[in-house]
Amino acid sequence: MNFNAKEAIEILERTPQTLEYFLSGLSAGWLECNEGEGTWNASEVIEHLIEGENTNWIPRVQFLLQEGESKPFPPFDRDAHLKEQSGRSPEQALLEFKRIRMENIAKLKDLIQSGPDLELTGLHPAFGSVKLRELLSTWVVHDLTHITQIVRVMAERYRTDVGPWKAYLGILKDK
Amino acid sequence: MNFNAKEAIEILERTPQTLEYFLSGLSAGWLECNEGEGTWNASEVIEHLIEGENTNWIPRVQFLLQEGESKPFPPFDRDAHLKEQSGRSPEQALLEFKRIRMENIAKLKDLIQSGPDLELTGLHPAFGSVKLRELLSTWVVHDLTHITQIVRVMAERYRTDVGPWKAYLGILKDK
Repeated sequence: MNFNAKEAIEILERTPQTLEYFLSGLSAGWLECNEGEGTWNASEVIEHLIEGENTNWIPRVQFLLQEGESKPFPPFDRDAHLKEQSGRSPEQALLEFKRIRMENIAKLKDLIQSGPDLELTGLHPAFGSVKLRELLSTWVVHDLTHITQIVRVMAERYRTDVGPWKAYLGILKDK
Repeated sequence: MNFNAKEAIEILERTPQTLEYFLSGLSAGWLECNEGEGTWNASEVIEHLIEGENTNWIPRVQFLLQEGESKPFPPFDRDAHLKEQSGRSPEQALLEFKRIRMENIAKLKDLIQSGPDLELTGLHPAFGSVKLRELLSTWVVHDLTHITQIVRVMAERYRTDVGPWKAYLGILKDK
């Protein structure tokens, strides 16, 4: 096991500002490109990350601590942000993501300070019994997944532009 | 074709500071982890990016403009940074990457201002004839490849920690 709360928070703290720095001021071509029908562009990924802050991570941590395995977590709709358009610009979405993430990290730090047993379990609707430390690890890896997704989508835009170098670029390997 | 020089420079400009923000101050556990024997940790990736600035991208652009297809590009050793240890700390490497990248972007901007024909060709030692715009597109996608590599390596560290959620995390899909 590699998880520890201090190191996990290091990543959770960096994600919003890393994305803000990387994406702010980019041309629309970079922000609006996706990997084809049914895939997300960078702005849609940010909206999904905001949705997770509102309804997934900290709410599930609190639910787990309160209910244990007595009730399953309320389901998280990973496409919720696609059903209701936020009307936010990418810059506004990045700011909102930073705001709510910082708020949630403060909650997480409070919670960690009280020294909860990281082996405590809750009930996932699909997986059954899951541990608090697994939920927190997943929050971190979920960030990392979506950072790579944003970067991969942008690389896709130059798939044919790179000509023969495609053979050397792992990010463009055929799906 | 999606390539245009202004948009390409947007990415090239952001990479060093994005990585600096994401990696500076991280615990050694994050900076030193890799994906197993023969794979690179985050610091080694930064050293590779520095090597590319010194001997690959701008030098090849200049070579292409000077030699056309009369001589092949001098080969680029993608493992050069592993043979000679730089002795730099990750923070020093990030600063050096930013310094030399900014220098190279200034050279690129000068060059673009003189309005070169982006269809001009040079001779790649393995691929044969390659276009200036393909070389510049590849520089961009090479950045994106290595950003995702760094993030993916860090996710790998929590592969077992996430428990059953592994099934939902694309970044951890089995290789």
